[in-house]
Amino acid sequence: MSRRVIVRGHSSTHTGLCQWPAEYHAAMPSSPHRVTAIAGDGVGPEVVASAVRIIEAAGVAIEWEWADAGAEVFRRGDSSGVPRETRDSIERTRVVLKGPLETPVGLGEKSANVTLRKLFETYANVRPARELPGVPTRYAGEGVDMIVVRENIEDLYAGIEHMLAPDVAQCLKVITRKGSEKVIRYAFELARREGRRKVTCATKANIMKLTDGLFKRVFEELAEEYAVEAIEAEHLIIDNVAHQFAKAPAQFDIVVTTNLNGDIISDLASGLVGGLGFASSGNYGDDVAIFEAVHGSAPKYAGKDVINPTALILSSVMMLRHIDEAAAADTVEAAVLTTLESGTVVTADLARQTGSDIEHAASTSAFTDAVIANLGRSPAATPARAVRPTGPAPAPHPRRSYAPEVYAGIERGLAGLDVVVESDLAADALGAEFESLAGERFRVEFVEARGTVVYPATGLASDTVRAFRARLVASDGTVLGEEDLVSLLGRVSERLRWSEAIRLQVLDGEPAYTKAQGQ
Amino acid sequence: MSRRVIVRGHSSTHTGLCQWPAEYHAAMPSSPHRVTAIAGDGVGPEVVASAVRIIEAAGVAIEWEWADAGAEVFRRGDSSGVPRETRDSIERTRVVLKGPLETPVGLGEKSANVTLRKLFETYANVRPARELPGVPTRYAGEGVDMIVVRENIEDLYAGIEHMLAPDVAQCLKVITRKGSEKVIRYAFELARREGRRKVTCATKANIMKLTDGLFKRVFEELAEEYAVEAIEAEHLIIDNVAHQFAKAPAQFDIVVTTNLNGDIISDLASGLVGGLGFASSGNYGDDVAIFEAVHGSAPKYAGKDVINPTALILSSVMMLRHIDEAAAADTVEAAVLTTLESGTVVTADLARQTGSDIEHAASTSAFTDAVIANLGRSPAATPARAVRPTGPAPAPHPRRSYAPEVYAGIERGLAGLDVVVESDLAADALGAEFESLAGERFRVEFVEARGTVVYPATGLASDTVRAFRARLVASDGTVLGEEDLVSLLGRVSERLRWSEAIRLQVLDGEPAYTKAQGQ
Repeated sequence: MSRRVIVRGHSSTHTGLCQWPAEYHAAMPSSPHRVTAIAGDGVGPEVVASAVRIIEAAGVAIEWEWADAGAEVFRRGDSSGVPRETRDSIERTRVVLKGPLETPVGLGEKSANVTLRKLFETYANVRPARELPGVPTRYAGEGVDMIVVRENIEDLYAGIEHMLAPDVAQCLKVITRKGSEKVIRYAFELARREGRRKVTCATKANIMKLTDGLFKRVFEELAEEYAVEAIEAEHLIIDNVAHQFAKAPAQFDIVVTTNLNGDIISDLASGLVGGLGFASSGNYGDDVAIFEAVHGSAPKYAGKDVINPTALILSSVMMLRHIDEAAAADTVEAAVLTTLESGTVVTADLARQTGSDIEHAASTSAFTDAVIANLGRSPAATPARAVRPTGPAPAPHPRRSYAPEVYAGIERGLAGLDVVVESDLAADALGAEFESLAGERFRVEFVEARGTVVYPATGLASDTVRAFRARLVASDGTVLGEEDLVSLLGRVSERLRWSEAIRLQVLDGEPAYTKAQGQ
Repeated sequence: MSRRVIVRGHSSTHTGLCQWPAEYHAAMPSSPHRVTAIAGDGVGPEVVASAVRIIEAAGVAIEWEWADAGAEVFRRGDSSGVPRETRDSIERTRVVLKGPLETPVGLGEKSANVTLRKLFETYANVRPARELPGVPTRYAGEGVDMIVVRENIEDLYAGIEHMLAPDVAQCLKVITRKGSEKVIRYAFELARREGRRKVTCATKANIMKLTDGLFKRVFEELAEEYAVEAIEAEHLIIDNVAHQFAKAPAQFDIVVTTNLNGDIISDLASGLVGGLGFASSGNYGDDVAIFEAVHGSAPKYAGKDVINPTALILSSVMMLRHIDEAAAADTVEAAVLTTLESGTVVTADLARQTGSDIEHAASTSAFTDAVIANLGRSPAATPARAVRPTGPAPAPHPRRSYAPEVYAGIERGLAGLDVVVESDLAADALGAEFESLAGERFRVEFVEARGTVVYPATGLASDTVRAFRARLVASDGTVLGEEDLVSLLGRVSERLRWSEAIRLQVLDGEPAYTKAQGQ
């Protein structure tokens, strides 16, 4: 019955925000939780319906605000994929339960899933990966029970891309101290709250000393602070983390990492414990939290009542904990684990994995019914995970102030300018050109192609791609001013086609830029 | 005996390039191969010694040019870690067998391993991951036998980093058509040469449409070309690849990917088949090839004769194939597999994995002796892998010309300028400031923070980090010229602290830059 209501709710959202039918309001307690529900694309409506039905059956009173996002919104001409009414609803409810969203090719440039996460500053993407009963994997019995906490706003996911020349593309990877501190602190607080004993930080700081190096330094600072809570902190290089996930995943507890790394290793972690059909996910900000399955919209299964809804149900368990319905969360989680453990109601994806009878696999709605029937039961062999607070949670506070006066106190120096140009000149000729453009106030430190020095000549033939970066620094004894930078760029623009210019700063006496390879 | 010679060779390299002792030259055939041998740091000298001894025992005549790189070189004050004499040797021999190199903290900013790969334009990093006999893993018996081909020059590994403001770091990810074509063509040629049937391309093109999108498009172009060879081509998103590596790794044959992705998934692949102690690696360029173990220098084991040399021995097998010693390569490989399969000579790392007797584990030199004793034998249960050419290899040719005239024919437009500034202003005030700086020829399209639009106001409170990017585009009816860009930047520099400026190009009618999130 409720399933039909939900489908109706979803259909009517095409004309805007849709409230839960009035007859449901009457049955609810006086101040129910309010949650924005986004049915999403493909199999989204079915898995969201499943979770909603189970939550209702568990007795949690939620006033759902049904809202649109995804494919249909793009097709209506909204290039963000997230319409105003949906944003307004989330501003009101501050909690979202959503199905997967599609970004139709050619209609939207940006994923609506990512846009939602960014617009509401949900900076911590939390991805548990725990061994599940009845889900056979190569790692079963090893006790894998980790959470990947992925930074959700910064890094290459900012999606800032430019062509520096034809056939030469650039994407900016941005990492900030504030963004790093927020997600790392979230990870440590999560460890504290769940009584977990170790936080592993995964970066490529050995290669990217400024960006990933910053993330690592912030981690080390916060690790000191949480050492008093007896939470172990370690930093591992991201490639080693991937390697260790395959070799000995049970060693991990909480892993905190940058956005793209987190994307990769969280899906890897899901792969160790049964796959995306079981992978729950929460996106947490200071104000808003968004709960979603990790899997895509799987359009070929849409409307067929065959998809495994476990991922979204487990995401809704995270949601229940977030809205202080911890008992209901435990009840629903135990019912899901009991259903999986029983092995009698098996969805097609799992039947395929276990080699059992796909013809008689359970439908989405039959699996949902089974979970509802198991509300109140606990799995025999899977101990409940304690996720209650282990003590009073102090309001997280920034370790450092980010106030203007802090930054005003930093001693500034101007070392020069990096200029990217597109040119058909050979490296030597281009170097000579820059020498003549440098003028009295600059000298050419190097010209590089794809990160490797090509001028002054190294005697080696690096392949070039018509895009070069020249580093011009202050001549001996010169103190550069703002006008020197603009004037230099003006001279360059008269003779070369420049596509990018980056200031070389000195902050508190330290160069705020890296060397080139081979320098 | 030869082991002692190698150690002597390594010790004497501190004063420069060291030739193989004269008495060895006399015993060699008239035109032996020449290979630059770099013993490296930590356990490097021991594993290189092992491989060299086995190659000699297999009867391959190689004139080794012993050369320095790594920790000792950094300590001598060479900030590249790769001295001139070593570069000269590689220019002569064009083949390198090397141990791991350290980059001591505080002495070198760039990894000497990476510098070597870049200086010699070894653009294809080839990382086989094949199930090995006697090496128990969770995936044993599934027939994992894949090769990850990793782009080795571009991407974030170019290591171009700047602070855009205090606490705001940026790294440039650069992807080019030429660099992509080289490595993707290498992957398809490798498939052809080894008779492999599938090449999988792994990117994050759904998020990074210009950079990873370019890599994917080049892959799709080349896939058409190789379709006539009946080589299957597929593109998968990198997070799905990581997920599938955990769930069903035997489905993969050759996987080609960008540099950092490749770093992560190649180590993951190694983890599936026994770990870095067994992970061989070749770095191939058009002129030079560098063969090395993937593992680090493991200083705590240095000089103790306990390290497992299998990774470097298998890398030297790749080297033998590269220098047309295919028969010797097969012989050495078979001897290694026979030794592993026998299970009687087990190094400490493997004993630890299998839970067998670590006290009586084989030393590095005992394992080497065992492999030499097995030269000529073949493993009982492991079929030999055919790696001989499957037909005449046509010289790879670029699919597209990269000549200047091609680029001269591209129609150019100038759409505007992205300017990154550091500011304590609120988003609205900063937007107003840019409006007043835009002048008649520009208008403000947006101001964003960490990729998300903050001006014009979206009504949402994205957290900011004192670095903002403003996009200024041509006012209606304005055709921008070079001087407009410089003049705009001049106006900005009088009122705001700018740290980066990027030209917005239009190439053949298409915007050569992406939208902001929420735009």
